[in-house]
Amino acid sequence: MRVLIAMDSFKGNISGLEASEAVARGVRRGCPWAELKILPIADGGEGTVEAFVRTMHGRTVHGLFTGPLGRPVEAAWGLLPDRGAVVEIAAASGLPLIPFGRRNPLHTTSLGTGEQIRAALDAGSRFVVLGLGGSATNDGGMGILAALGARFLDAAGGELPPCGESLEKVERIDLSRLDPRLAETELMLACDVRNPLCGASGAAAVYGPQKGATAEIVQRLDAGLRRFAAAVERTTGRDVLDLPGGGAAGGAGAGLTGLLGARLARGVDLLAQVVRLDSEIKRADVIFTGEGRIDHQTAQGKVISGLAARARAAGVPLVALVGCVRGHVGPLMSMGLTAVFPITSGPCTTSQSFQRSREDLERTASQVIRVIRGTLRRQSSRRPAGQAKRAQENGDGISRESSLPQTRFTAP
Amino acid sequence: MRVLIAMDSFKGNISGLEASEAVARGVRRGCPWAELKILPIADGGEGTVEAFVRTMHGRTVHGLFTGPLGRPVEAAWGLLPDRGAVVEIAAASGLPLIPFGRRNPLHTTSLGTGEQIRAALDAGSRFVVLGLGGSATNDGGMGILAALGARFLDAAGGELPPCGESLEKVERIDLSRLDPRLAETELMLACDVRNPLCGASGAAAVYGPQKGATAEIVQRLDAGLRRFAAAVERTTGRDVLDLPGGGAAGGAGAGLTGLLGARLARGVDLLAQVVRLDSEIKRADVIFTGEGRIDHQTAQGKVISGLAARARAAGVPLVALVGCVRGHVGPLMSMGLTAVFPITSGPCTTSQSFQRSREDLERTASQVIRVIRGTLRRQSSRRPAGQAKRAQENGDGISRESSLPQTRFTAP
Repeated sequence: MRVLIAMDSFKGNISGLEASEAVARGVRRGCPWAELKILPIADGGEGTVEAFVRTMHGRTVHGLFTGPLGRPVEAAWGLLPDRGAVVEIAAASGLPLIPFGRRNPLHTTSLGTGEQIRAALDAGSRFVVLGLGGSATNDGGMGILAALGARFLDAAGGELPPCGESLEKVERIDLSRLDPRLAETELMLACDVRNPLCGASGAAAVYGPQKGATAEIVQRLDAGLRRFAAAVERTTGRDVLDLPGGGAAGGAGAGLTGLLGARLARGVDLLAQVVRLDSEIKRADVIFTGEGRIDHQTAQGKVISGLAARARAAGVPLVALVGCVRGHVGPLMSMGLTAVFPITSGPCTTSQSFQRSREDLERTASQVIRVIRGTLRRQSSRRPAGQAKRAQENGDGISRESSLPQTRFTAP
Repeated sequence: MRVLIAMDSFKGNISGLEASEAVARGVRRGCPWAELKILPIADGGEGTVEAFVRTMHGRTVHGLFTGPLGRPVEAAWGLLPDRGAVVEIAAASGLPLIPFGRRNPLHTTSLGTGEQIRAALDAGSRFVVLGLGGSATNDGGMGILAALGARFLDAAGGELPPCGESLEKVERIDLSRLDPRLAETELMLACDVRNPLCGASGAAAVYGPQKGATAEIVQRLDAGLRRFAAAVERTTGRDVLDLPGGGAAGGAGAGLTGLLGARLARGVDLLAQVVRLDSEIKRADVIFTGEGRIDHQTAQGKVISGLAARARAAGVPLVALVGCVRGHVGPLMSMGLTAVFPITSGPCTTSQSFQRSREDLERTASQVIRVIRGTLRRQSSRRPAGQAKRAQENGDGISRESSLPQTRFTAP
């Protein structure tokens, strides 16, 4: 039995990888010879490197890189099989690297993240997944780009430091010294936010304050990003002003897309590119997914709905294990989910359910697998008795047997 | 797809029949062409008649019968297909028929229940299920027996009225005028208690007080039942003093077993006799059972464990839907259960779970059926591709594929 496992995180409780590993334990308990594969579901934030390295059997690489305020920090990235790499901006340019009082996105830079990408190129990687969550920066990705050879010039032709303060001064962008290996490298930006670069829902307005920006700084950064976008368009002809996700990581989504042709990808789409998702799905007997809470709203556009469409197309059952279901499950079924099972073992508080979520996931997964095994065993025990046809009719839904109950009795 | 449904009650919340009907709705939602059969799970108490009539497509018969204190009461019994009938002692001789202040098991009689059995014989019934729960009586079943022609005589040869008070005076039992139709009739006593006739866990000591007996009356009744058992043994040679369940319905379990050769049966065993359970199981693709709360303790000897042994022998998956699971599910699995699913949709209070239990059962049943359908569909879609062998290996568990995850990638 082949089982794919692609759990999203149970927000505020356990990561997607932890959830997947709990499900894997349950599957093994229910079917010890199952062939398991855990898929890395990462929203691009902290944990993205670990998820890819662990599930794709890569290797973590540690090094010293330029931190968000210019001082060196130790940070890890991941070398993946088949000339791959995974980097997360949170590692070398993340907000937790700066004490509260010193956070100011005018001064932070994503330079170290670019250095990590360069290290990956040095190691031979030619596709790079870059997680864009959790950055301390609002530099439009200039730091990353600078580390890879881009130069940002002011009106006088002077080179600008790659930080938020410089955005409003960028007049020209020089890509002539860009690392030539980028031309043969696929850069995928993992990002689960859809914010555009500028405006009320843009990078500065929405994420600036948590990075330490005052209202005044937010205004400067927002104006700077708009000016930066104009410079990008002058350079490559690409308009990134309204790009969904362009506002990710302080505008790095827009900068890397506009200047390097990187692709913004979310959850399932990233999986589809990195692990040949559709062919994995075709080979599976069942797929497990899930998240902390499911309803028609939360499922839209997320991991589950993306998997559902693909699983349905391939005819593979997709079972969601969730912390709780709210509302009717009908709409989830029509999305393509085969079934949803809440994992709680009975009445309990939310905090109890949080504490037990690993064992509850394990138990529920084992029970679902046992139902599948029981069904297969039942069918195969019938087939030798010459009932293959009937078994198949049951399976493909052609049979239309009476739904009237019958007893051994004749009329009273 | 053939589906058997045999839900036990969710104690204090919904009856086994209500639970089964909720599961049936879920199964139909998950698989509209499923052939459903609900089995009557009854503990012998109030609702036994309804459970059998509804699930076996019988007919309710109303009539006037002698109540527990001698006044006529309207009570129903059930005519079942194939010359069957179902009677519950709670209907004509039940405790709720007497106001609190007038309850006294010295004076109550089970006569009306015997009249109902007579009515069933008149209607042609030759097997009778008699539910023994909820009686107001402690007459050793003398009322029932008297209505069917038995006579209870004191030392002077005088005929005694069939009530608790008479037990201590019974010297001889005259069965010569017993209804001759009983000889060709199978009488099954549905009863989920195991109390013996006498002693500390006997009928009078355990159930006397709730029927209105003072401590003194309990003593008289207990002594009377012991004397009665001696008279029974003198009459038929059957020793019913230690019979498990002999104390059911104020000793009716012992009286009917000892004098009529009736059989005490519980849950699954009754089903096995009445509905040819094993052959129904063999034809099923899946069986649903369940109860309010499951753990290794509560499952022992009850409906679920009885079904589990039979389902395992037949190789049919048995899925329990329960209000809550406590403790580890491992022991339940080794009993023969395929899987257990709690029906709660997430964290909630017990009272919320009680309120939602019908819809939660419906939802969970539909999800399990969808997993089974999805599995069958998956297998049948593979079979035409020449992978029948592999599907079968998966099913019967012979295949021992590697459990190591693999990626498309070669070594890093």
